[in-house]
Amino acid sequence: MQGDIPLREPVHSIQPEDEWRVEQGIAGAEFYLLDQTKGPGEQPRIPVSKHPITPPVEAKFDDELAKDEIPGWSGYVEWEDYPGKKKTAHDILMSHEFPPPPEFQLEPIPGTNPVLEGIRWKQWHRAIGGRLKDVPEESWKIVLEEKDPNMLHLLQFPYNGEPPKRLVTAQAITPNPLHFIRNHGGIPVIDPDSWFLRLEGLVREPKKLTLADLQDETRFPRMERLVTIQCSGTRRIEQISLYAGEGDEMINAPWAEGAIGTARYVGISLKKVIKYCGGLIDGAKHLELVGADTYFKMNEVMNYAVSVPYSKVRANEVMLVWEMNGQKLPKIHGAPIRAVVMGYIGARSVKWLYRITAMKEPTRAPVQSREYLYFNQQVGKHNQRWTDGIQIQEMPVSSAIMSPWNKQVVIHEGKISVKGWAYSGGGRWPERVEVSADGGFSWYMVPVENLSPKHKFAWRTWTMEVPCDVEGWIELVVRCWDNSLNTQPTEVRNAWNWGLHVTSSAHRVRIYSVNKSKEVTKARLEEFERRQVSFVPITRPTEFPYMTWKEYDDFFAKAGPRDIEV
Amino acid sequence: MQGDIPLREPVHSIQPEDEWRVEQGIAGAEFYLLDQTKGPGEQPRIPVSKHPITPPVEAKFDDELAKDEIPGWSGYVEWEDYPGKKKTAHDILMSHEFPPPPEFQLEPIPGTNPVLEGIRWKQWHRAIGGRLKDVPEESWKIVLEEKDPNMLHLLQFPYNGEPPKRLVTAQAITPNPLHFIRNHGGIPVIDPDSWFLRLEGLVREPKKLTLADLQDETRFPRMERLVTIQCSGTRRIEQISLYAGEGDEMINAPWAEGAIGTARYVGISLKKVIKYCGGLIDGAKHLELVGADTYFKMNEVMNYAVSVPYSKVRANEVMLVWEMNGQKLPKIHGAPIRAVVMGYIGARSVKWLYRITAMKEPTRAPVQSREYLYFNQQVGKHNQRWTDGIQIQEMPVSSAIMSPWNKQVVIHEGKISVKGWAYSGGGRWPERVEVSADGGFSWYMVPVENLSPKHKFAWRTWTMEVPCDVEGWIELVVRCWDNSLNTQPTEVRNAWNWGLHVTSSAHRVRIYSVNKSKEVTKARLEEFERRQVSFVPITRPTEFPYMTWKEYDDFFAKAGPRDIEV
Repeated sequence: MQGDIPLREPVHSIQPEDEWRVEQGIAGAEFYLLDQTKGPGEQPRIPVSKHPITPPVEAKFDDELAKDEIPGWSGYVEWEDYPGKKKTAHDILMSHEFPPPPEFQLEPIPGTNPVLEGIRWKQWHRAIGGRLKDVPEESWKIVLEEKDPNMLHLLQFPYNGEPPKRLVTAQAITPNPLHFIRNHGGIPVIDPDSWFLRLEGLVREPKKLTLADLQDETRFPRMERLVTIQCSGTRRIEQISLYAGEGDEMINAPWAEGAIGTARYVGISLKKVIKYCGGLIDGAKHLELVGADTYFKMNEVMNYAVSVPYSKVRANEVMLVWEMNGQKLPKIHGAPIRAVVMGYIGARSVKWLYRITAMKEPTRAPVQSREYLYFNQQVGKHNQRWTDGIQIQEMPVSSAIMSPWNKQVVIHEGKISVKGWAYSGGGRWPERVEVSADGGFSWYMVPVENLSPKHKFAWRTWTMEVPCDVEGWIELVVRCWDNSLNTQPTEVRNAWNWGLHVTSSAHRVRIYSVNKSKEVTKARLEEFERRQVSFVPITRPTEFPYMTWKEYDDFFAKAGPRDIEV
Repeated sequence: MQGDIPLREPVHSIQPEDEWRVEQGIAGAEFYLLDQTKGPGEQPRIPVSKHPITPPVEAKFDDELAKDEIPGWSGYVEWEDYPGKKKTAHDILMSHEFPPPPEFQLEPIPGTNPVLEGIRWKQWHRAIGGRLKDVPEESWKIVLEEKDPNMLHLLQFPYNGEPPKRLVTAQAITPNPLHFIRNHGGIPVIDPDSWFLRLEGLVREPKKLTLADLQDETRFPRMERLVTIQCSGTRRIEQISLYAGEGDEMINAPWAEGAIGTARYVGISLKKVIKYCGGLIDGAKHLELVGADTYFKMNEVMNYAVSVPYSKVRANEVMLVWEMNGQKLPKIHGAPIRAVVMGYIGARSVKWLYRITAMKEPTRAPVQSREYLYFNQQVGKHNQRWTDGIQIQEMPVSSAIMSPWNKQVVIHEGKISVKGWAYSGGGRWPERVEVSADGGFSWYMVPVENLSPKHKFAWRTWTMEVPCDVEGWIELVVRCWDNSLNTQPTEVRNAWNWGLHVTSSAHRVRIYSVNKSKEVTKARLEEFERRQVSFVPITRPTEFPYMTWKEYDDFFAKAGPRDIEV
């Protein structure tokens, strides 16, 4: 925390060392306002960041407010049952000023791992204090225990992480330690024997069920499904690279192509549990799923909640699961029980599930009503309303290239090996994957035998050899057609939106193609090798001659001079 | 200088903290090779940078090699007359290993001013020693004396600098201290009274002429011309941002839109001087222009030289000038005499001119024969030959937007004020300038009265109000039609080339459009103002509600629910 930061000078007195970077749009988030409705002399002075003087957060601790209430439930605070607690927490949050999230869009994305820290979320937990105070550190410890050391940590707290490209499609089923994680709060640790699920609201017979109840096969038949879960932020980095959008480090973390994972889940159908409670009453049409993690939104404190329409449950597409790829559900994935909502965005598959409430309308919990909204391109900070956004439930058809990588120099002999994944939400599946080596002009079909098997709710991985004669910078592009013949728009701008959700445009990878089947290229590569000079970085100037003066003279003798002399 | 840098590990053992940045193409120049003609186990280990152990450069100094020979000529070393000296200098350079230029394309462009230092050029000067040793510092001193403190220094030595956008078109004639500089070596300081020009080669009567000779109006009529000089690297930053190309910090500096300047020059026509020497003989068709600055290329040392066809001279389009905008030609601009080759790239307008040699063919000096070449898109490090490039003499038609800037948030009421320049080389002039606010789909004409006057060899500056209803991120684009009806390609890729020269594509600026004539937007802006919350950075999350729950409910009551329930 620093003290008061003075207002910066307006645009016309930017220091020269900043100016060209600001002009080119590569730095200086604060200087970008140009109010053409005002005269040049009245350009608004732009106050920067309002970094407040935050009094030591410790002063506000209230151990009574947030404590472990139920034996065996650690790091869980019940908020919804206690309006008084919520009010106190709100007052505590209002009495502080918290720092804004770091700028990672108008300024370059940090080159650290974790990429972002989650500074506000940590401070909010500390401000509430009590049991929540230590949750950020406890959760990070679980990350290090349960996740693969190769994970790319997008956000330290609440933990968001994904596997690197080389591991995303290495197997058609994602190993648990490599499965992406997009948490919205800390990780509660709940003893399976103490855990119970509350079924409430508009159900005929509200109930509390233990894990043993759910696992009683005489009541609830066991169910096993291969399911791909995808975060609606997948490939957000492409939208960020084109245009900045909303920049909350937790809500808008710069995901790459790994925020998708496929696992075999074991559990039961939520439909059977609702039936066991006597079914819905009074025209209830939605089920609110509540997790034991604490969520923050605009100075309010709450338990994480979303809802799914009952029609989805009735179709047996909502599972309560305790096993993932043959292993006990990991803590970080929601143990002991999480929801898996097939074909919906990951945000609906609530972890640490402990309460299900039947209701008439979709929940007003912010994750459902005010976040994960898909706006028209012209909706943004200047005009958005929650009702302007399409609620993101099912993900549209999409795909991504996992190799080669952007800017990679690819040496080949006329065919480039490409691999990746393809997926469609809502129970649709990839029927055809196509790759272009000319920026989306011509499309080659991935041979059917190069696609992993079809499943109703899972992705398909694929590999192919794309013919490519062209040298120099080319753009590889992939698109998928699902069984409903949906396909993807070709350009990021087509689907760009303020929340930077659902990057459904065809994935593009720029590579430097070196076609060794060409004589001149082959000879040049051999010369690099003979001279023991590295061919990369390609930007490094070549320090040996490209041709002899005789070749030079012969060329112009034949082709005519460079200048036509009159 | 560090010592031996060990080979880095191959691609599969990149550290996780680097990996995702490498994957996304935002870091890690060395890791990009993927040789698909080799198996996965045989991927080449990529040696990094070969930073050599450079013995202290001081050891090689040879004060006799590079010294001031002619009284009144300081910092000038004659190389072309002394093959022996050139050989010695070559041997000195070969006996060192110099560091490679910094990576500024695959890695982000540094945010410093000077942006790049010119480390190799400084070291080459120091390695040759003698008089050249101090030239980098002497030259920088002249920069600070003669150029405006607002200059953006692209390269400290040899000095390359341009004015910031807000000053590029502030006046239709560029003030001398703000005129861009693209030097290829140090700045020699030559006393006008000691200066002389050598006219040699295939002229009937070789001569040495003093400044007084040239200024003798009885021999050579005075000439005054308004001339725009443009560097072929102008707007290179756009090509770099799309795809990396050759990365020599001196040759390929990351110019923005300010590498163009317009001045009123006074001097004489070179044609008259050639006539005064009795004209050309033996079929000479080209004039080599040689400057007193020292140039380096592939371990060879030379005086800076280019050539122009005599047809250009005969048309009175090559001037020898000593006055710029009513002032004595500044040292940094080539005092006492420089060439001004109208309608050609700046590289031909040799500064510190002291020798003109008539010849049959264009010069083989590297700046003419091996640099400033315009390649086909598929020519690059893997296959280029000097004969593959079009020699860049005249610049094609081009234009640029000087306001607004990239990423600027522009508040307006349906019309956006845009301004900039337009230019065409070879004596063609801008006839029409068009601006698009929809990425190049629809074009509005800049009203004729908003363009500065036409001149045969100068740019036109312009301003206009472009109608824009659309909000959110839009792309402003400008293109120009010259009097020969040439116009510009719309996309950077259309004209991208390995040398990153001649960025002739339509200039694009991405802005965030806020149309205050729209009710919702106006109300939102007022709310920001009322709450005293800054609207920028736009990425900063909005911490107040977007609408009331009543408005929310009313909306869905009218529009139907978010989920269709069966």
